[in-house]
Amino acid sequence: MNSILTGPVEIVGTGLIGTSIGLACRRAGLEVLLTDTSEDHLRTASGLGAGRPKAPGDRAQLIVVAVPPDHLAGEITHALTGDAVVTDVGSVKSGPLAAVAGLPGVDRYVGGHPMAGSERSGPLAASAALFDGRPWAITPHEGADPAAVALVAGLAELCGAVPVWLSPDEHDQAVARTSHLPHLLAALAAGALAGAPADHLALSGQGVRDVTRIAGGDPALYGQIVAANAAAVGRLLVELRDRLDGAITALGSGDRGALESLLRLGVDGTRAIPGKHGGPVRPTGAVYVAVPDHPGELARLFADAGEIGVNIEDVRIDHDPGRPVGLVELTVAEGLADHLQGSLESRGWVTHR
Amino acid sequence: MNSILTGPVEIVGTGLIGTSIGLACRRAGLEVLLTDTSEDHLRTASGLGAGRPKAPGDRAQLIVVAVPPDHLAGEITHALTGDAVVTDVGSVKSGPLAAVAGLPGVDRYVGGHPMAGSERSGPLAASAALFDGRPWAITPHEGADPAAVALVAGLAELCGAVPVWLSPDEHDQAVARTSHLPHLLAALAAGALAGAPADHLALSGQGVRDVTRIAGGDPALYGQIVAANAAAVGRLLVELRDRLDGAITALGSGDRGALESLLRLGVDGTRAIPGKHGGPVRPTGAVYVAVPDHPGELARLFADAGEIGVNIEDVRIDHDPGRPVGLVELTVAEGLADHLQGSLESRGWVTHR
Repeated sequence: MNSILTGPVEIVGTGLIGTSIGLACRRAGLEVLLTDTSEDHLRTASGLGAGRPKAPGDRAQLIVVAVPPDHLAGEITHALTGDAVVTDVGSVKSGPLAAVAGLPGVDRYVGGHPMAGSERSGPLAASAALFDGRPWAITPHEGADPAAVALVAGLAELCGAVPVWLSPDEHDQAVARTSHLPHLLAALAAGALAGAPADHLALSGQGVRDVTRIAGGDPALYGQIVAANAAAVGRLLVELRDRLDGAITALGSGDRGALESLLRLGVDGTRAIPGKHGGPVRPTGAVYVAVPDHPGELARLFADAGEIGVNIEDVRIDHDPGRPVGLVELTVAEGLADHLQGSLESRGWVTHR
Repeated sequence: MNSILTGPVEIVGTGLIGTSIGLACRRAGLEVLLTDTSEDHLRTASGLGAGRPKAPGDRAQLIVVAVPPDHLAGEITHALTGDAVVTDVGSVKSGPLAAVAGLPGVDRYVGGHPMAGSERSGPLAASAALFDGRPWAITPHEGADPAAVALVAGLAELCGAVPVWLSPDEHDQAVARTSHLPHLLAALAAGALAGAPADHLALSGQGVRDVTRIAGGDPALYGQIVAANAAAVGRLLVELRDRLDGAITALGSGDRGALESLLRLGVDGTRAIPGKHGGPVRPTGAVYVAVPDHPGELARLFADAGEIGVNIEDVRIDHDPGRPVGLVELTVAEGLADHLQGSLESRGWVTHR
């Protein structure tokens, strides 16, 4: 499908995502034209090899709008005035589509959303590898030209991403559940810690760190994103408030059954998330290993695990207060955990399960 | 302080925590007496070397009550009928204390709560290393005998844990914030995924996986734990409902400022959590590395990182749909990330930041 994407590709907005797409297109040998309201970003992105600044008279085959949520609709509208196919990488899809729905040439617009990012932003953080193996939602509207849709799918594949096909509305409901609601709940959990006494926070374990990690993201950016998906997120929050009211009532009246139902629904939800590599969740087991906090110790552990021949599915380093030893959790296929543990013990590691 | 703990130590309840304490005490050469209503657990725990079944006439210096929350008060009461010092390892402290407050010998009772666990339970999952470097809350009541307090602190230290001193009420408020509220919010976030269409869930990234991970825990056990701390958790849930109502209103009215305030409070909260080894949070940077999903590749990566001489603070393996490459996030001290990235690239790794 890639062969139909011959370029030039125009990138509007040379932040992290736009510049990374430019780098991936250049890696594939396509001509890339860059525009940005920031001369600095434009210079940096072209200096990194993501393309060259667009000149008067340049015409693109595909325009990729990669600007912050508040500016998406305006830039997509502007891009459609030519005859290029237009896509965007915004994290919400219905709003921008509604803004351009009546325009001539809207059949050339196909929304997209690569599920990639970083805690960093700007062109300096960009990489052609940013999208490698990540989902890239493609959200054609009903009137979209199939040739335009194929071109946008070609871009996602050229970037190494895995296309996920959804309607714009479905996409927004999906990210409300899988991204925006979790972000708000992480912020609420973290907000409850702000101002708590330090000796209370000393009891923080890995659980609360995991729950709150994404709440560290830029409030202005996430405010834009969540506000752009206000309808879908609002519906979920209202459902959630009902469940929360249920929990408050259950706690107050000692209704253990209601509390357990809420917790059981959570277990169901964790099992609904697709497993590694998009397949079904495979049963896994964990082995905990005490590792001195020096350079080289993790290398020694993984070298031993490699020689033992067990594939490590996931790793987690537990943060201990008060002593220079890390507890490393190795996740492996369920049937291999005992073997891994025994073999590591025989190599002198202190482990438990 | 350990020298005053000479044993025998009696363990009431040979589950994960009780058996692990038994193993740690045996490692230190103390005599350990085990009791359990389950003959199976008792046989397993003593077979693992955690101690011997208690016989008539055996007298302990210290009794450790390690039973599920619903049975704590009864077992502590029973243990106090002798003349041993009594502690427990329950995850909530005010309730059991209130139940035994008027009893003769309550000066010999000192509550405790080791912040350790595992997704597994039962004696087979036990390990003398379970508490290594973990916080162990010690929660003496006002009438507690200082000698009894010292004995319980000695047990925590013998197990390799780091004592954290709190009153019973403070402890319960602390775990309500750092453990029970995050657990309920994780369950609510996960519950919103239950029943969602598979193609929506395909957009799940690392964020939602982190937020919901702890929601996979046993609903019956967490129901007991949260119900035992109903008052403190209920107060936090009511505060949280007010914030949630604020978010719903802000989304409905497009009040971006209110939304950003909520998100900003979350950022403050993530920064309030103590850093690795209990020190202040140090600024860190992340380097992302594409790693083929075969045994030995992680070993090669960590061997290279070790030779580069940069200490890895944390590791995360990102779960990609659809392709056999993992994206490994290495967290290092902020000033070292560029050096690590450049050095890994020069060794042939595909990286980004």
